[in-house]
Amino acid sequence: MKKWLYSCGSLLFRLVGANKSDALSNAETTIAVDCMGGDSGPEVTVPACLKLLDRNPSLRMLLVGRQEALTAAVHERAEIVHAEEVVAMDDPVEVAMRHKKQSSMRLAIEAVKAGRAQAAVSAGNTGALMAISRYVLKTMDGIERPAIAYPMPNVTGGATTVLDLGANVDCTEHHLLQFAVLGSALDMALKGRDAPTVGLLNIGSEAIKGNEMIKRAAELLREAGQKSLINYFGNVEGNDIFKGTTDIVVCDGFVGNVTLKATEGLASMVSKVLKEEFSRNALTKMAALVAMPVLNAFKNRLDHRRHNGAALLGLRGLVFKSHGSADQLAFECALIKAIDAAENQLLQKIQARVQQASVLF
Amino acid sequence: MKKWLYSCGSLLFRLVGANKSDALSNAETTIAVDCMGGDSGPEVTVPACLKLLDRNPSLRMLLVGRQEALTAAVHERAEIVHAEEVVAMDDPVEVAMRHKKQSSMRLAIEAVKAGRAQAAVSAGNTGALMAISRYVLKTMDGIERPAIAYPMPNVTGGATTVLDLGANVDCTEHHLLQFAVLGSALDMALKGRDAPTVGLLNIGSEAIKGNEMIKRAAELLREAGQKSLINYFGNVEGNDIFKGTTDIVVCDGFVGNVTLKATEGLASMVSKVLKEEFSRNALTKMAALVAMPVLNAFKNRLDHRRHNGAALLGLRGLVFKSHGSADQLAFECALIKAIDAAENQLLQKIQARVQQASVLF
Repeated sequence: MKKWLYSCGSLLFRLVGANKSDALSNAETTIAVDCMGGDSGPEVTVPACLKLLDRNPSLRMLLVGRQEALTAAVHERAEIVHAEEVVAMDDPVEVAMRHKKQSSMRLAIEAVKAGRAQAAVSAGNTGALMAISRYVLKTMDGIERPAIAYPMPNVTGGATTVLDLGANVDCTEHHLLQFAVLGSALDMALKGRDAPTVGLLNIGSEAIKGNEMIKRAAELLREAGQKSLINYFGNVEGNDIFKGTTDIVVCDGFVGNVTLKATEGLASMVSKVLKEEFSRNALTKMAALVAMPVLNAFKNRLDHRRHNGAALLGLRGLVFKSHGSADQLAFECALIKAIDAAENQLLQKIQARVQQASVLF
Repeated sequence: MKKWLYSCGSLLFRLVGANKSDALSNAETTIAVDCMGGDSGPEVTVPACLKLLDRNPSLRMLLVGRQEALTAAVHERAEIVHAEEVVAMDDPVEVAMRHKKQSSMRLAIEAVKAGRAQAAVSAGNTGALMAISRYVLKTMDGIERPAIAYPMPNVTGGATTVLDLGANVDCTEHHLLQFAVLGSALDMALKGRDAPTVGLLNIGSEAIKGNEMIKRAAELLREAGQKSLINYFGNVEGNDIFKGTTDIVVCDGFVGNVTLKATEGLASMVSKVLKEEFSRNALTKMAALVAMPVLNAFKNRLDHRRHNGAALLGLRGLVFKSHGSADQLAFECALIKAIDAAENQLLQKIQARVQQASVLF
């Protein structure tokens, strides 16, 4: 997940705004940050961390990375944790797991495991982050596989939480049910929704649609809905993600990842064509000047950086993934999500929901 | 597939232009048109047919539908074929198949089977069209399942042929190989490409990525590539569709359908946000006026109508699907594709390719 969805809708931005004030109000939160992850490493991660530390007097951070790369990371509430190694963006998972046991990514996650931090944030290699998180933190009782959840902004001005986005490529109906419970818990804890609706990503709204696994998943989700373990809406289609038909959309990681990347590809093409048309000749460039404030407003609503930060759900600890190409603003958004999750007791709330629903797993 | 992808790139438009002249140059092509299909029925289909008949002196058409609805369909090279029944857009497949044996859709396809037309076009219910086509025409030797292929415009100015887009929700690796051969034959026949590249839709470019079926498919496609039966590129990701990394992208119908609809959903959200920002107040409306020519050029490049027309491949006859909400221009584009396919001997070319590759099926 190198780039993230360019998308519209402003609720998430407002949510981020709301989270900021929450993040400022509570006491004693420690976030472990893999400062070496991402395309830019400390150049981006350190200023983002320092800014949030400055703005939040009750926040502490463990800044994990090569000591010599973190000389600028000076703050009274920041502790440097030296890491010998760095997981490269293209390291195979097994290299990250077996041969880099002292990586900044791993040490950040181990800080969560040891209770020294309430959440970890990394902009590093997604596959490695998921594998190390799973190995170090383990999954919750009742959860076979963790999932990657990301809020995709929709046309209602809200955001649709979609999971899984690539952690699991061979799913059973039971995994999809677990994703539904995890996603519901996330939305309830962070968005304050009472009974968020869950849609099953399918190729039609009728119950008979889909492949065999999806049909079995639909049945299981319906059953969970009848028992009020989730608020099941039914089947949804690809466009429903952006229509905001349901609060949560569950799918296997293969479909979720392809969908995320395809929409990224389309968004980047649309943006390119708009730019091309406005820079075609002197007249169109003049039009661009006049339309600049509107185009900027449009661009701001499409700004993927403000939505940065995916949650790795189902683990015995909180881990957030920033996109690799995050700039400072984007990385701040991912940090804010992690702070908000820690302060809102996301982990405990998810655990309670999972326990309640585990009769069906 | 009610709506179709809003998308950029102009090659397809240019191709349509080229096809128009081809369609005008050759002799004796007969197209069977289901005039009752789609959201608007004869109101849209009949004027589109008449326009193409007027422009193409060697074209004949069988206009299939309720006689009383086709009173405007008067042309010396058009024959009205009366159909008692109409497949509704929401008819279940079994109703269309078993209880509407005299539907306009079925009679149009039967005209192809009987050799009275070289291709059929319908804007009706996709599921019914596929089921009836398969039942009436049968699949080619070596092809277990027909596929829906659609060219999605990409940022290079070309179009990526993606298949399957929803006909098959439970695919094996052998089906994907068949799709690769069908898609290659389509591109070679209609786009004149010598050795179109084939990508396998996956969640990463490395060979080890994907679910079990995808890994087996990758192996099979590689083998087919080594035997020069296809020009296999390797794995591609969702964004590669719009980057135009390969000429053809193969995937199972579930993934293809979700991807198509998600990108439609995003495109429609982007368009709505752009409209909202330009109509926010008097100043932005003024900016919209100045930028109008540029915005129109942008809109034209995004115009999904010009890409209308999906091919149902792998059958013993040519069938094209127009989107249900097609207007006259869009329906004309679907008709032109069918005419072009008939005149370019698409069926014979596909059959030859399939026969050659069937050693691997």
